[in-house]
Amino acid sequence: MNDESTLSLVLFSGTDDRLGAAAILAVGAAAMGRPVNVFLQYWALDAFRRQNVATEHGVAPEAGAEGEALVRASQTGERHWSELLRQAKDIGDVKVHACALSMELFGIGKEDLDPIVDDIEGVAAFMTDAASGPITFI
Amino acid sequence: MNDESTLSLVLFSGTDDRLGAAAILAVGAAAMGRPVNVFLQYWALDAFRRQNVATEHGVAPEAGAEGEALVRASQTGERHWSELLRQAKDIGDVKVHACALSMELFGIGKEDLDPIVDDIEGVAAFMTDAASGPITFI
Amino acid sequence: MNDESTLSLVLFSGTDDRLGAAAILAVGAAAMGRPVNVFLQYWALDAFRRQNVATEHGVAPEAGAEGEALVRASQTGERHWSELLRQAKDIGDVKVHACALSMELFGIGKEDLDPIVDDIEGVAAFMTDAASGPITFI
Repeated sequence: MNDESTLSLVLFSGTDDRLGAAAILAVGAAAMGRPVNVFLQYWALDAFRRQNVATEHGVAPEAGAEGEALVRASQTGERHWSELLRQAKDIGDVKVHACALSMELFGIGKEDLDPIVDDIEGVAAFMTDAASGPITFI
Repeated sequence: MNDESTLSLVLFSGTDDRLGAAAILAVGAAAMGRPVNVFLQYWALDAFRRQNVATEHGVAPEAGAEGEALVRASQTGERHWSELLRQAKDIGDVKVHACALSMELFGIGKEDLDPIVDDIEGVAAFMTDAASGPITFI
Repeated sequence: MNDESTLSLVLFSGTDDRLGAAAILAVGAAAMGRPVNVFLQYWALDAFRRQNVATEHGVAPEAGAEGEALVRASQTGERHWSELLRQAKDIGDVKVHACALSMELFGIGKEDLDPIVDDIEGVAAFMTDAASGPITFI
């Protein structure tokens, strides 16, 4: 994965609109043949807990009620962000890592996470994967 | 535009403080001769609708009333984020693309957007422009 | 600092959870030998004011009361984001710049900032430091 073109996505926010935007970028990058490395921190990690993936996670406060309804309507079936991310994993070299420090923060273990998460990783390992490449924070 | 040094800015948030920060980075990058590729998703796209650009879009909740007043006072005339972005387009190679999926989300067409937006683009095309370069998400 | 591998971190948000995430990335990058360039805008700059660093800065609205309590408990002693950033400066080539335009916005001077801030810089200078490398916006 030590490729200059690797897209390293740090997911911090766990709202459905940001996770949707992140999943679209991951699918697009995977389709272009770029390796994608996802690192789950804080509220994004919380959204990838086994029992949380399919539930609603709210949207950015700026969305308002109308915006939230639009996002809600768009997050169905194959277009749910978790499905888009699974598609990205099917078509490309996409890995999903849980941040070890955030795991500690929530006091959870690997068994609490959705299977879409590949492993738990410290920030040093994530940075090694990122090599000298770009890091996109969402 | 397939240049390693291209700054690809994904604008997701549509609040005036984040759009202001984004416009400053775009101007700075354009002044340094870097090509800039802007991709409008979700609430940022909403802020670029023809009738919305000049209206107020709120600020991050953390700003508080005092912070909001400061941002409001700073977003005047030539320092409004939309003006800064126009200046960036004047001095450099700056393109503004609307995300096709977000256009669908809002059910709008090209004619609904401010002329500062160059075209509508899918995420694959955006990733092609980004080449293997960095993507900054705002 | 004109190194392709430089990690340029634009800190915009001033909440303790985002500052914590940023500090972790800075430490990780510094540990890997990457130069780190931090640029403080808007609410992040406000959090680096001399009297503000040690105070509470809230968390993202999506955190909820439970999430806020977890973040609060994690931001103690050596794990406070300001301490992590100081550690990053000790182990690596980490510079912290205040955005000149944001300084104007708040009407403050260098003497109002915590000593962890190295200097005040315009966006053009920041872009020169970033060279053609990636910019991560937090």
